[in-house]
Amino acid sequence: TQTYRITLLPGDGIGPEIMAVAVEVLEVVAKQEGLNFEFTTALIGGAAIEATGEPLPAETLDACRQSDGVLLAAIGGYQWDNLPRHLRPETGLLGLRAGLGLFANLRPAAILPQLIDASTLKREVVEGVDIMVVRELTGGVYFGEPKGIFTTETGEKRGVNTMAYTESEIDRIAKVGFETAQKRTKKLCSVDKANVLEVSQLWRDRVTAMANDYPDVELTHMYVDNAAMQLVRAPKQFDTIVTSNLFGDILSDAAAMLTGSIGMLPSASLGATGLGVFEPVHGSAPDIAGQDKANPLAQVLSTAMLLRYGLHQPHAADRIESAVLKVLDLGYRTGDIMSADMTAVGCREMGRVLIEAL
Amino acid sequence: TQTYRITLLPGDGIGPEIMAVAVEVLEVVAKQEGLNFEFTTALIGGAAIEATGEPLPAETLDACRQSDGVLLAAIGGYQWDNLPRHLRPETGLLGLRAGLGLFANLRPAAILPQLIDASTLKREVVEGVDIMVVRELTGGVYFGEPKGIFTTETGEKRGVNTMAYTESEIDRIAKVGFETAQKRTKKLCSVDKANVLEVSQLWRDRVTAMANDYPDVELTHMYVDNAAMQLVRAPKQFDTIVTSNLFGDILSDAAAMLTGSIGMLPSASLGATGLGVFEPVHGSAPDIAGQDKANPLAQVLSTAMLLRYGLHQPHAADRIESAVLKVLDLGYRTGDIMSADMTAVGCREMGRVLIEAL
Ligand SMILES: CC(C)[C@H](C(=O)O)[C@@H](O)C(=O)O
Ligand SMILES: CC(C)[C@H](C(=O)O)[C@@H](O)C(=O)O
Repeated sequence: TQTYRITLLPGDGIGPEIMAVAVEVLEVVAKQEGLNFEFTTALIGGAAIEATGEPLPAETLDACRQSDGVLLAAIGGYQWDNLPRHLRPETGLLGLRAGLGLFANLRPAAILPQLIDASTLKREVVEGVDIMVVRELTGGVYFGEPKGIFTTETGEKRGVNTMAYTESEIDRIAKVGFETAQKRTKKLCSVDKANVLEVSQLWRDRVTAMANDYPDVELTHMYVDNAAMQLVRAPKQFDTIVTSNLFGDILSDAAAMLTGSIGMLPSASLGATGLGVFEPVHGSAPDIAGQDKANPLAQVLSTAMLLRYGLHQPHAADRIESAVLKVLDLGYRTGDIMSADMTAVGCREMGRVLIEAL
Repeated sequence: TQTYRITLLPGDGIGPEIMAVAVEVLEVVAKQEGLNFEFTTALIGGAAIEATGEPLPAETLDACRQSDGVLLAAIGGYQWDNLPRHLRPETGLLGLRAGLGLFANLRPAAILPQLIDASTLKREVVEGVDIMVVRELTGGVYFGEPKGIFTTETGEKRGVNTMAYTESEIDRIAKVGFETAQKRTKKLCSVDKANVLEVSQLWRDRVTAMANDYPDVELTHMYVDNAAMQLVRAPKQFDTIVTSNLFGDILSDAAAMLTGSIGMLPSASLGATGLGVFEPVHGSAPDIAGQDKANPLAQVLSTAMLLRYGLHQPHAADRIESAVLKVLDLGYRTGDIMSADMTAVGCREMGRVLIEAL
């Protein structure tokens, strides 16, 4: 049997609860598929700050590097919001992305027929929406230098970040965009602000040039303000979106919210080496932490993405995704997706019915 | 009688058609209110490029500077999209903002009961939405230096823009944010990305400090990705939003689209001198230009904003806004907001019924 070393990063808030369910699910699937998982748990975010004084201890990065895949739950909480930047949970997450070279972030936002009424948009507008946002994750204004708070000649402070991309940074994420579109409906929309920003002009030029290598993909360009608008106006026009770090942060959250149920959405962060980090789109929800109220399904679907994109075990991924659809068909709902006539369950109970469904 | 010099910038696409309606309306209101307008028409955008080779001729900027208020329609069109940056219509618009020091952009997004079904969101989600986005307009990544496409040591190109704000730039827009909130429901949400960006950290610190001067305003902070999400999830939670140039560009368009009818939304760009530019949120719609199909109401409501915020003639502004509501109540609709049982009209005809309503 194939053995995979998986690093678990439960993090903060509801992280440990939803991670526990995901691991149980993985263990059942492992038996069914004849796979073997060796799990290592490591610290990140607020939990790491409490234990070690830093949000991303070197041992955590090492553990991740030595594994075949990383499962992350969620980081952050109010108690760490006012620490200096290098001691913030978010800084740990950014360090993980940079440290593992995870330049490609895949964020699917698909409407599940079972949950369509959870959307704040009209049924006819969102029915069938199936968007994949391919977000650049280790460049742009998140990492550009110079950055900091400087003092100007007149003695006042000036906050500075640098939004920058090199050609090779653009090319490698554009490639992921085209290849992702190829596996889907072959429609790729590149989002930028080329009418104002030079960095976007270079982005648009490189993406346009690469289109020659993918004659089967229909490439369009859209300005980011218009994209935010079009996601609300007519989201079905989109299939695959490829965009920079900051625009992807904003648009993937807007796209996620179209589904009305961000407790359901997984994501994958991939690099050149094949090692990836898989995590839910939602946050650590400190307000409901420890109360067995969290929805573990995004975490469980993140393990499906780990199996599909990280470990190349599509069959095991299919199993998990089918089990999730089945528990929804059976009417089980955590609080965040509860509606009339459904069966309310907590986090652990959702795990139990999932395992039954498997 | 008070005389006001107004510079008209009809621009491109549907610009001239909707401007003609707005001017007729202004002339009627002038008589009713005993005001006197002297209009000067000047070139901007594509129209200026065709006539003079540049998107913002010096005469245009001079005319604006010598006037009491500027009414702009819309700029841009496909034929100018691939020109070098300094010859683009958008560059003219940015030059106008910078040249007149228009650092504060007010973008209201309110649902009109008459048009609520035009929204793609469910009625109960958007009913009563009334948001004012206060966007910084002459700083941030739109204008920060250095910018350009440079060659790195390894010989590849690197596109660079600089996202920067000084304390005084933040303070003056924050002040507009607080004062705007004071005139509304006293709720101000400042949007930034302070968990990642130093420039946002400075933004948040300054806005927080200024809150002491406005004890009657309830200040909250939100990250831009969450704000994009919350606008879709529960837009009624927002009243006044204050944010930077780029975030305001994206969020004001998302907020506008919640109403389902961006053909209805005006905006105001204000500086320290009192001189302002008033324009619709929508673009130049080259596909329907010259066909008498455009909706002139955003342009007409922009003249109301000119009267209210630029010329301090609130009574005249009220007249125009009431007339717009009246023609909607009477059932007149241009194509973009048409629905069953309503009376379809073109741009000119909408102007005619507006004047009747006045
Ligand atoms: C927590 C934060 C640093 C992060 C980001 O902005 O990338 C988050 O919003 C995300 O989208 O994963
Ligand atoms: C045309 C463009 C330069 C402009 C902007 O980005 O500011 C537009 O999108 C706007 O919002 O007024």
